[in-house]
Amino acid sequence: MNIVRYNETEAIRVSDTVQRRFLYTPNLMTVIVDFSEGPATEPDPFHSHPHEQTSYVAEGEVLFLMEGETPQHLATGDMVAIPAGKPHAIQLLTPTARLVDSFTPIREDFL
Amino acid sequence: MNIVRYNETEAIRVSDTVQRRFLYTPNLMTVIVDFSEGPATEPDPFHSHPHEQTSYVAEGEVLFLMEGETPQHLATGDMVAIPAGKPHAIQLLTPTARLVDSFTPIREDFL
Repeated sequence: MNIVRYNETEAIRVSDTVQRRFLYTPNLMTVIVDFSEGPATEPDPFHSHPHEQTSYVAEGEVLFLMEGETPQHLATGDMVAIPAGKPHAIQLLTPTARLVDSFTPIREDFL
Repeated sequence: MNIVRYNETEAIRVSDTVQRRFLYTPNLMTVIVDFSEGPATEPDPFHSHPHEQTSYVAEGEVLFLMEGETPQHLATGDMVAIPAGKPHAIQLLTPTARLVDSFTPIREDFL
């Protein structure tokens, strides 16, 4: 079975403050993203990608920014959908946060 | 912005023990599923669908069953990927559990 057990799966270190664990099927990828060293004084840079995305806040709080829209404060249990190609960014509001990001198609750039 | 705030979004009651909150983009749907009245003495019936799925365990513990495979005990922070068409089932091991299920294509049957 295609499983990620959080405590048994070594994370991929994306930066000093961001780690990923993920799995995927041919057209769907879900990524556990752990952020640390918050709260941040300003948002991360905006970025975009052609993939449709949802983000579920599994732990912590973030400010979620989307181009042309009012930033939204999201806490544990909340989620947001991001259209393909839409510039977006987050600002960490707590010392750590965990997002569960899903994408279609899969993020080949994460493999 | 296309957001679900857990505490402000009325759940869809699927049964006496299952509630859903969801959002979606054209090809991606993410569903917060709250299960209650566990632990269960046996698994729910197997079911399948043509959609690819991932399930993240946001709270609680479940036994995850997939046809032809050894059942797997999943706890908070773990996740599993389910191929299109693969029969699967869960058994609730705790009084409540919350899964975050993502699907592509979207579950038109949930709308």
